[in-house]
Amino acid sequence: MIKIAILGFGTVGSGVYELIKDNKELVTQKAGTEIETKYILDVRDFSDREDAHLFVNDYDVILNDDEVSVVVETIGGLEPACTFTKKALSKGKSVVTSNKELVATCGNELISLAVENNAKYMFEASVGGGIPIIRPLFHCYVSSDIKRVCGILNGTTNYILTEMFKNGQTFEKALLAVQQNGYAERDPSADVDGHDTCKKICILSSIISGQSVDFHNVYTEGITKISLEDTKYAASLDSSIKLIGESKVLPDGKMEVHVAPMMISKDKILASIEDVYNGVVVDGGETGDTLHYGRGAGKLPTASAVVADVVELAKNAAVPYIRPWAEAKENLVVSHDEYVRNYFVRIKTDNADKCAIGKVVAVKTFKEIFDGEIGLVTEKISYKSLTDSLKNMPGEMLGVIEVME
Amino acid sequence: MIKIAILGFGTVGSGVYELIKDNKELVTQKAGTEIETKYILDVRDFSDREDAHLFVNDYDVILNDDEVSVVVETIGGLEPACTFTKKALSKGKSVVTSNKELVATCGNELISLAVENNAKYMFEASVGGGIPIIRPLFHCYVSSDIKRVCGILNGTTNYILTEMFKNGQTFEKALLAVQQNGYAERDPSADVDGHDTCKKICILSSIISGQSVDFHNVYTEGITKISLEDTKYAASLDSSIKLIGESKVLPDGKMEVHVAPMMISKDKILASIEDVYNGVVVDGGETGDTLHYGRGAGKLPTASAVVADVVELAKNAAVPYIRPWAEAKENLVVSHDEYVRNYFVRIKTDNADKCAIGKVVAVKTFKEIFDGEIGLVTEKISYKSLTDSLKNMPGEMLGVIEVME
Repeated sequence: MIKIAILGFGTVGSGVYELIKDNKELVTQKAGTEIETKYILDVRDFSDREDAHLFVNDYDVILNDDEVSVVVETIGGLEPACTFTKKALSKGKSVVTSNKELVATCGNELISLAVENNAKYMFEASVGGGIPIIRPLFHCYVSSDIKRVCGILNGTTNYILTEMFKNGQTFEKALLAVQQNGYAERDPSADVDGHDTCKKICILSSIISGQSVDFHNVYTEGITKISLEDTKYAASLDSSIKLIGESKVLPDGKMEVHVAPMMISKDKILASIEDVYNGVVVDGGETGDTLHYGRGAGKLPTASAVVADVVELAKNAAVPYIRPWAEAKENLVVSHDEYVRNYFVRIKTDNADKCAIGKVVAVKTFKEIFDGEIGLVTEKISYKSLTDSLKNMPGEMLGVIEVME
Repeated sequence: MIKIAILGFGTVGSGVYELIKDNKELVTQKAGTEIETKYILDVRDFSDREDAHLFVNDYDVILNDDEVSVVVETIGGLEPACTFTKKALSKGKSVVTSNKELVATCGNELISLAVENNAKYMFEASVGGGIPIIRPLFHCYVSSDIKRVCGILNGTTNYILTEMFKNGQTFEKALLAVQQNGYAERDPSADVDGHDTCKKICILSSIISGQSVDFHNVYTEGITKISLEDTKYAASLDSSIKLIGESKVLPDGKMEVHVAPMMISKDKILASIEDVYNGVVVDGGETGDTLHYGRGAGKLPTASAVVADVVELAKNAAVPYIRPWAEAKENLVVSHDEYVRNYFVRIKTDNADKCAIGKVVAVKTFKEIFDGEIGLVTEKISYKSLTDSLKNMPGEMLGVIEVME
């Protein structure tokens, strides 16, 4: 029997509680021992619930109870989650979390603290909701250097882009629809501006590189500038547009990590991922590309990933597979200006024939799709060279979208 | 330091040897200890190799060497692989294998033998090559009852079907091409008749049900009857045709397990998987559907999965997460005759209007695609009712293909 405490009885926390209770037999069988929720920490009033006796609002009750060996942190955000996590780990209690912000911000410090105290800090649920991705990255690619991880890591933005492509909805209408379906937060900026994707790709980057990747150093562009016109160009390129977090380890050990909407050829499996689904492609060297796909968010998928971590701890199978990441070498993440890619560019011009963007060579131009503008795909060029050339361009720049390699 | 022996220096065995040697630093780091190949068992003559001293042809040398704690069985087939495996496990040596035939045939017995001897029997590489699937099934879905696993489990047949769809190749020409590319065996029957897929879906079925699923009880149909005409009908249904292994746990605990070509709507992610790639969809209950996708075969992907298992053993992290499967309850696998599905049917007839197949109701008929025949999709009906009706049909039956649910 192991006893756990759940911090925060919101969407994920209540999901964890219900899953463990409603699947008691199955969970016991898988874990090899019973798992019981002894406390739930939440300041709100749950006194009319049947299980009201589980609720506490003083964290010290949990900290000082030696029977509690695992703390599930589903509060989200930096504080008080960070302080609570540190206190638990310092007491030798393992912590399981779904909190991507905390893992991305100070995951390394928390893993180190766990190791020092012979405890574990586990965060399968922090990336990709119910998709197994963290554990496979640690366990299943051991003989291969992972060179690249990239994927669709945010369901809200993928739903919006799918609506724009399939049903010709504008960005604004698609956003409204996804909010009405309950997928998006009322303040959708963390989703649509790419910050949610950024936190997740930073966690994956730290795992594959073994070094802390700080999200402050990661170029992050959202999907708010993507227009229905862009989707038409993409369609004529037999491509889709997806918000992608990408992380590459370069031969010199430095990394390219960024978040941006990308044009993706329909030949690539990522282009097939629609609606609220997420997918992460891992280039595992010898194993070739693999895709990890599923629902990236939602109460039960995320709660299920948390419970999987708790079960792993209960089995005592979780030898400290998560080593602390090293401090990042200086300038680990290469500046986005230097990323050499093909870019799709749209330019407003009345004279398509005469339009040129500096010395940039187009590898493909489009038959006129909209009056008064042209679209083209550049040769491989650094982002800085491209934007420098665009400054001196005669026509007005309507948009730039990276073309996925 | 742990010392291993590799049985069989064929494609996978040599891949394992090279991966461990060429990635020594990385493997040591991941495993937390060095992994050294002490012996390679192969009766062929490798005396001109630099590492000729590693080769032995007497298995007892390996068995009697207490330094060898892990045996990698990459011989394939039932014997002598089975006897060698039993001998190693009986001595308390763990065994890692890529041998789907052996795991499907007597996996349960071997897992039990391992548990009795405080050893482990690990087989990530037996299904899906480099795609992590066995370990996630055991580790990552712990809180959810898995209700259904289905997928494309054979690269050769998927390549053939892709060629037929994309390039209008006949089955025979596509088969020749895949043989020339080195993907298919010279005798391709295990692939194209579905037996390879059957072994793999049986292994996955045993894992999700916790009971031995015997491949002799599993209806298995290959792709040799699929014609270019079928692909045209599929295209007009906005579908693809894939060879699918499917396993469902029914509410009464019985199972539907079968292998057959299926029409799959392009809305479903499995329809997007092309060429030699494999993909397994897991319906993880609360987690929703997830897809595990990648190269399902090949020297390095498969070897990489073997090495991942060896590393897991080296870390001593592999608490016996693989419990023996129970003996199957009587009639565990429901007869294929009883599977209720929509079926696509093609009938040769000069009078499409008057054609009827018994009492079967068509939910969709096709505009005439080929002269002198009609195609239709039936209502949901058991396979037995369908085939009974087809016997009494006025026209000649040209083909029946299940439509994926």
